[in-house]
Amino acid sequence: MPGPELLLYFEEDQASAQRLADAAGMAMARIERHRFPDGELKLRLPAQLPRSVTVLRTLDHPNEKLVELLLTAQTARTLGAVHLSLVTPYLAYMRQDIAFHPGEAVSQRIVGRFLAGLFDAVITVDPHLHRVATLQEAVPVPQAIVLSGAPLLSDWIASHHANPMLVGPDEESAQWIAQAASRHGFDHAVCHKVRHGDREVVITLPDAPFTGRAVVLLDDVASSGRTLAHAAQLLLAAGAASVDVAVTHALFADDALPIIHQAGVNAVWSTDCIPHPTNAVRMAPLLAQALSTLSIPSSE
Amino acid sequence: MPGPELLLYFEEDQASAQRLADAAGMAMARIERHRFPDGELKLRLPAQLPRSVTVLRTLDHPNEKLVELLLTAQTARTLGAVHLSLVTPYLAYMRQDIAFHPGEAVSQRIVGRFLAGLFDAVITVDPHLHRVATLQEAVPVPQAIVLSGAPLLSDWIASHHANPMLVGPDEESAQWIAQAASRHGFDHAVCHKVRHGDREVVITLPDAPFTGRAVVLLDDVASSGRTLAHAAQLLLAAGAASVDVAVTHALFADDALPIIHQAGVNAVWSTDCIPHPTNAVRMAPLLAQALSTLSIPSSE
Repeated sequence: MPGPELLLYFEEDQASAQRLADAAGMAMARIERHRFPDGELKLRLPAQLPRSVTVLRTLDHPNEKLVELLLTAQTARTLGAVHLSLVTPYLAYMRQDIAFHPGEAVSQRIVGRFLAGLFDAVITVDPHLHRVATLQEAVPVPQAIVLSGAPLLSDWIASHHANPMLVGPDEESAQWIAQAASRHGFDHAVCHKVRHGDREVVITLPDAPFTGRAVVLLDDVASSGRTLAHAAQLLLAAGAASVDVAVTHALFADDALPIIHQAGVNAVWSTDCIPHPTNAVRMAPLLAQALSTLSIPSSE
Repeated sequence: MPGPELLLYFEEDQASAQRLADAAGMAMARIERHRFPDGELKLRLPAQLPRSVTVLRTLDHPNEKLVELLLTAQTARTLGAVHLSLVTPYLAYMRQDIAFHPGEAVSQRIVGRFLAGLFDAVITVDPHLHRVATLQEAVPVPQAIVLSGAPLLSDWIASHHANPMLVGPDEESAQWIAQAASRHGFDHAVCHKVRHGDREVVITLPDAPFTGRAVVLLDDVASSGRTLAHAAQLLLAAGAASVDVAVTHALFADDALPIIHQAGVNAVWSTDCIPHPTNAVRMAPLLAQALSTLSIPSSE
């Protein structure tokens, strides 16, 4: 399979890196990292790099990782990398895409341009894009590839329920839910959601018959868990036989998971975009496939 | 006093910012910062900025702060700032100035260029430069201004000891120690230091008469505290009447301060470049003076 010659990764991503390297038939090398007592990082890459290198870094809790990527990418260029790609299964800072109040940092654009200054290509999964149509608008690299966890989550759900109903927690997810549902002919619907602050949401159920149904709440990202917990309570009150949760990105901040289970949710499933005990679906095959489509300039 | 029109600062730097704004006769405004549960930051600056703006951010534990500076600087440009300066009393990542082993990130150059891409001018105090002669080589901005905490520390020492002897913990500090000493005609000397890893150092005292002397160990930065503690023990064993410590940058990681005191050190003094209980000397007047020397293009 063509694609980058070497996968660079950090210690805590060892397992994901191994799966990706195996799927892509690619060599891998760990970036050595030392943390000084004052918080500074020292990174060490292989002393000689091939022409095409990819870096694996999922960007939950992103700030320190962005500095690691700065140091990594700039150093890789000096060590021989000509084409540098980033596989970031979870891409941070995509939600702040306009200044909601005057003076606010439009972090999506700033972080996107920062990454575009470091890499020739970016591959990610279900980025939370609202007001921009394509990833390339947010991260203006020559190649910006968006994958989705929805088909694999849909397959996983199909292996656990004969006739489930997929429900999205808000209208934003309507198209995404419809695609996941169509793969197996599942019924589907979306809730209406109004957000007040980070942890407070008000949800109303769609007008659909939930009685006796095995409902699976499907979303791109679960962070505080409040939205999913609230939707689950409403669904169970509306007669759903069971509620499970399936998400691409298992951020699950603080007490999110207990709150979801306390709301009556049975199983919680996620892709391994962010390593988490709920991971049920592996993205490595899709990521490897995307790597093989990169346009890497030949050495001539 | 000419100079930037507005000082932007973060909540934890309120006290330093107030002192600097007072000294410079400058307006100040806090950058509002919200931290999402997944570690992302949301920043909000004043909705309209004057043409010349300075940002105060000391860079101990630098990684997240570097992302804050990225978001701040890029946003400030969109809000009207034409000349953007950074006052960073402690400038991080200045020690890794070559690849000590093949493949290592030369963080000084990478972080320096990153900051130079954001700001038109940088003002700092006693940056730990070894193999580069000027700050501008490390941080290639149009104006890179280096101040020193040594004269003010020397004045402070002069107010506490009639005839102290200043001792630097290694030869690198020789010139810096000599300048501090000459201000009040203090005797001075430097130790010989060999470092093995982050926390292990071997020191030998210079051939000087320490018996009965009030010695002050002077250094640009105290991090693990091992070097200072070791030097203090040797000095007391060599007959010094007392040993105090004076440093520009009070990093003091983990148990550094107890270790220094356990070694027999009496007082520990620092500048306020990094806020710390040992702060004895205020840099605001010098920083304000430096701000007034910036070449800010007129609006014509």
